[in-house]
Amino acid sequence: MESLMNAAEEQQPPSALADPWSLKPESSKNQKPKGVGGFVLVHAGAGYHSESKAKEYKHVCKRACQRAVDRLKAGALAVEAVAAALVELEDSPFTNAGMGSNLNLSGEIECDASIMDGKSLHFGAVGAISGIKNPVLVANRLLSEAQKGKLSAGRIPPCFLVGRGAHDWAVGHGIPPCPSEKMATKFSLSAYKRNKRKMELAEKMETGHKQAKKRRQSSENENGSGCLDTVGAIVVDLEGNVAAAVSSGGLAMKHAGRVGQAAHYGCGCWAENACNMNPYSTAVSTSGCGEHLIRTMLARECSAAVQSEDAHQALLEAMQNKFISSPFLVGEDRVLGGVIVLRCCRCVEAQPSKHIQGILVEFLWSHTTESMCVGYMSAQDSKAKGIGNTVVLERAAENTAAPAKPHTALRSSHVLSWAQKPEELDVPYLFTPPHWMQNKGPALPPPPPPILLRLE
Amino acid sequence: MESLMNAAEEQQPPSALADPWSLKPESSKNQKPKGVGGFVLVHAGAGYHSESKAKEYKHVCKRACQRAVDRLKAGALAVEAVAAALVELEDSPFTNAGMGSNLNLSGEIECDASIMDGKSLHFGAVGAISGIKNPVLVANRLLSEAQKGKLSAGRIPPCFLVGRGAHDWAVGHGIPPCPSEKMATKFSLSAYKRNKRKMELAEKMETGHKQAKKRRQSSENENGSGCLDTVGAIVVDLEGNVAAAVSSGGLAMKHAGRVGQAAHYGCGCWAENACNMNPYSTAVSTSGCGEHLIRTMLARECSAAVQSEDAHQALLEAMQNKFISSPFLVGEDRVLGGVIVLRCCRCVEAQPSKHIQGILVEFLWSHTTESMCVGYMSAQDSKAKGIGNTVVLERAAENTAAPAKPHTALRSSHVLSWAQKPEELDVPYLFTPPHWMQNKGPALPPPPPPILLRLE
Repeated sequence: MESLMNAAEEQQPPSALADPWSLKPESSKNQKPKGVGGFVLVHAGAGYHSESKAKEYKHVCKRACQRAVDRLKAGALAVEAVAAALVELEDSPFTNAGMGSNLNLSGEIECDASIMDGKSLHFGAVGAISGIKNPVLVANRLLSEAQKGKLSAGRIPPCFLVGRGAHDWAVGHGIPPCPSEKMATKFSLSAYKRNKRKMELAEKMETGHKQAKKRRQSSENENGSGCLDTVGAIVVDLEGNVAAAVSSGGLAMKHAGRVGQAAHYGCGCWAENACNMNPYSTAVSTSGCGEHLIRTMLARECSAAVQSEDAHQALLEAMQNKFISSPFLVGEDRVLGGVIVLRCCRCVEAQPSKHIQGILVEFLWSHTTESMCVGYMSAQDSKAKGIGNTVVLERAAENTAAPAKPHTALRSSHVLSWAQKPEELDVPYLFTPPHWMQNKGPALPPPPPPILLRLE
Repeated sequence: MESLMNAAEEQQPPSALADPWSLKPESSKNQKPKGVGGFVLVHAGAGYHSESKAKEYKHVCKRACQRAVDRLKAGALAVEAVAAALVELEDSPFTNAGMGSNLNLSGEIECDASIMDGKSLHFGAVGAISGIKNPVLVANRLLSEAQKGKLSAGRIPPCFLVGRGAHDWAVGHGIPPCPSEKMATKFSLSAYKRNKRKMELAEKMETGHKQAKKRRQSSENENGSGCLDTVGAIVVDLEGNVAAAVSSGGLAMKHAGRVGQAAHYGCGCWAENACNMNPYSTAVSTSGCGEHLIRTMLARECSAAVQSEDAHQALLEAMQNKFISSPFLVGEDRVLGGVIVLRCCRCVEAQPSKHIQGILVEFLWSHTTESMCVGYMSAQDSKAKGIGNTVVLERAAENTAAPAKPHTALRSSHVLSWAQKPEELDVPYLFTPPHWMQNKGPALPPPPPPILLRLE
């Protein structure tokens, strides 16, 4: 595996790992970072993204990045910015989250969402919630309420609410309800009808062939992976605080009440500021088949993995050993998932006289699905040229579209590095070109290069 | 810390760690273990157990152990036996699970439960489910359905269902509904009324003192820890397969829709058979404050910890570093929880000519709460004398009843070892007496010895 080093890493060795945040800027005392800085990385799911909708994916990722950047510029911390990005992603009728979510077996929309703040390590989540336009706002409110401490009579505030109770709590905390019928779109309704017909046909065929007992092995490839497009975002603010969030309408034709990874601690998102034990701050958001992501706790595993020196190598190994070849997924014929990962550390300019602090950010993504849509933006210079603001809609080669489990492999994996140097805006971006992994399984043709959709 | 070694460990060194299960009995091919063997460990919660109900706790733990043992003797695997134990614990009106569960803010019963099979590593869970007498049976059914593979049209079966959807799925799979009013008991209803009055009074006082903003720090000690008595069980069968389960009515006066650790992967229970990476099979079930147990993923952390050589020392360290002093619970003034842990490895008699295989079982428990109720039984000789069948209702010393967070310490921690040697029934039990930990925090008076309630 090729080792990736870039100019940023060479120029700016991380400060002492034992206490990487020892040189905090003054602003940390005021809870609000001064100045402008920070970085956001969003995804519109790992699954299958139609080429015809590339433009819409591009626009929603751009808007989501912009929303987070606007919040960062207004002095918001990472957790506020990440929630703002998620609201934009949920509001798009093209993503499977909030508006336009997949319908369940009963024709209803039930959403999962969660958010984690790397600074306080608090977490909030909602599962199978109906009638709320932005589930992430409920998760975020749960997080912020829990940070305030105990409720009356010493009761411990909840971090995870589901179903009707979650809806009522949200409304009770000022989050407006939204009629479920308004959340369904033409597209989601027609997909529901199509899926229902397909399911009925499959069940009829299976009964006809008297294969009821073996029915479950018969139709692996019919679960359109287009339905896996959970959305998420990860953010680092100027102070180096990280936050992560994820939101999903869940699998198409799921049973009512089914909760996926997006509401599950350690599975849908993870964020952890650097501490004595961890030299790097890390944030992760996942997408894919919820059951696979729950049983492998993929967000937390990836976060732990990238504490090692070579983040890209560590992520590849985590995706291979903790996901594709995980003992927890031995019985699964295909393992569907994708992650976006951000890690950062504070670093000091080599010339000690200057005392210039910067944050070295590395962002990575990797997936086993046919495509994954990723966008990223810097708060330091949102109109920057180069690769600073980019949406990547990435597609695997046609002939690797549906490999069986032994052939399930990472479709692609990337690492890019970016250094925020507040005093030296002339070199804000440092770029390592996409790096295609060597598949460990049977040789696959190399995937085509990603489609780089430049933001206007 | 005193090192605990016992006769079993000295006599029977574990076989090669690289593949500890290489010497499987023939029965493993038939999915059903032949002969009689296995072990069960149950808990009726870490919290506060009234002395006046000691007899009832003793009886329910005994019955739960007996149910699991009956299943093991009938040739059941660990996962079936652990579910049977849970049904008995849920059916008791004295435990906070199933019948007699705590009522939520709205006066309803909503239960959480989960089960994990160490052999297949499958997991099933239900959250905030109403109108089902035995939530663990729904979790178990989700687990077994998922093991069958995909649903029609390639849909992935759920591992986690909540609320109304979970109820409907259960009824659709032949689990009978139970009117919620039948699940409430005189005790749970009067506790609800008492708690409601207390809450209203607390809120009135807080408003009266115009301390609305500071209300949350004012009444930490009023959340009766008697309400934390989640139940659980862990089992190893004759083949050495492990399984774990947990079930809870949740915190008293919780918000409707709140889901605690009992439904959360990695937090309420964990079971993992030995494999190439793990020399020991481990099973864990937790009890305590759900939010604390979720945010620390305590079940999985304890499971991972006891892979090291000295299980007791490892559990003490895990409880101290991953729970009491966890960076995830920095803001909490008290950290409430307890665990039961089982680890085992196959071992071969020192005299190679005999080729006698046994399973060395170590079982441990530890808690930070005022009391914890634990029972255990062997399937090999359920009428055995000695400590083979015992219920322990353990209480901390009076003057350590409610320490503030910096003083939160393990109330007690135990390890016992037991060797199953099918061919040599004359020495079935090997016992290490309870070992009281050295508290790392400020010195606490040593807790009194546990009350050992011998089973009739």
